[in-house]
Amino acid sequence: MRLTTLCYIERDNQYLMMHRVKKAKDENEGKWIGIGGHLDESESPDECIIREVKEETGMRLTSFRMRGLITFILPDWGNELTFLYTGKAEGEAPEECAEGILRWVPVDQIMNLSLWEGDRAFLPLLSGKREFFSMKLIYAHGGKLIQCILDGKDITNLILQ
Amino acid sequence: MRLTTLCYIERDNQYLMMHRVKKAKDENEGKWIGIGGHLDESESPDECIIREVKEETGMRLTSFRMRGLITFILPDWGNELTFLYTGKAEGEAPEECAEGILRWVPVDQIMNLSLWEGDRAFLPLLSGKREFFSMKLIYAHGGKLIQCILDGKDITNLILQ
Repeated sequence: MRLTTLCYIERDNQYLMMHRVKKAKDENEGKWIGIGGHLDESESPDECIIREVKEETGMRLTSFRMRGLITFILPDWGNELTFLYTGKAEGEAPEECAEGILRWVPVDQIMNLSLWEGDRAFLPLLSGKREFFSMKLIYAHGGKLIQCILDGKDITNLILQ
Repeated sequence: MRLTTLCYIERDNQYLMMHRVKKAKDENEGKWIGIGGHLDESESPDECIIREVKEETGMRLTSFRMRGLITFILPDWGNELTFLYTGKAEGEAPEECAEGILRWVPVDQIMNLSLWEGDRAFLPLLSGKREFFSMKLIYAHGGKLIQCILDGKDITNLILQ
């Protein structure tokens, strides 16, 4: 199972979002996501997200919290466990990095972006009071979300209205 | 990186503990630990801990929460990411299972058992109010703990007094 981290860096009610338009064969092509990447060997998720934010944005995470754990079942790409963070960072993000274009997007406009269907299930949880959640997102071939389980409860019908 | 789950099942201020005295070549040999095991392919950590508790104890988890994530650096055994839970379960545990002897141990006596040094760092956190924590435990060859990082802070000196 691939192990990745993903952080939504917050500043002034905006998240730093990356529009993935640069990498070849990117499973996220065209989608807007947070900042993150793959765990290196011997790296904890916390160490990984600090490194990835630095590498992709040049910014330094000054505080962060693991908010959730997502198990992605992705028949097109292989399964993935993602450690999901929110955090604050100092410094200024460049307009783009090697993997895409970077933009600060108001939190209340995030859902207007081109997002993975499953991201629409967990993003609202990051603004809520829930300290930590566990989610399983099951995709079919072609990137269609078919099942969403939150803390053991099947909420697919709530998500795929 | 190996992916495992570990649950401390609580009942009447006791944890269900397993004394690992049965498996050949068990890195936990002689130690008391909670209930858990390895993630199967396509299994979320939540699904894994439900299955492992059922398989090892016959009991059914009725409620559980992921309380922490531990990154173990283990030069003798290979690195491991452990999803740490507390929970409640219905049913009666047998006296033993395939992997060891099962006992309900009062929470305030857990630290008297033969434990991994690193477990002494995270077990007290399970009784506290902290919703979720991230810990990295770095062991040397021979099972000696050499570093403990809690939520990004090095607390080795507090643990190895």
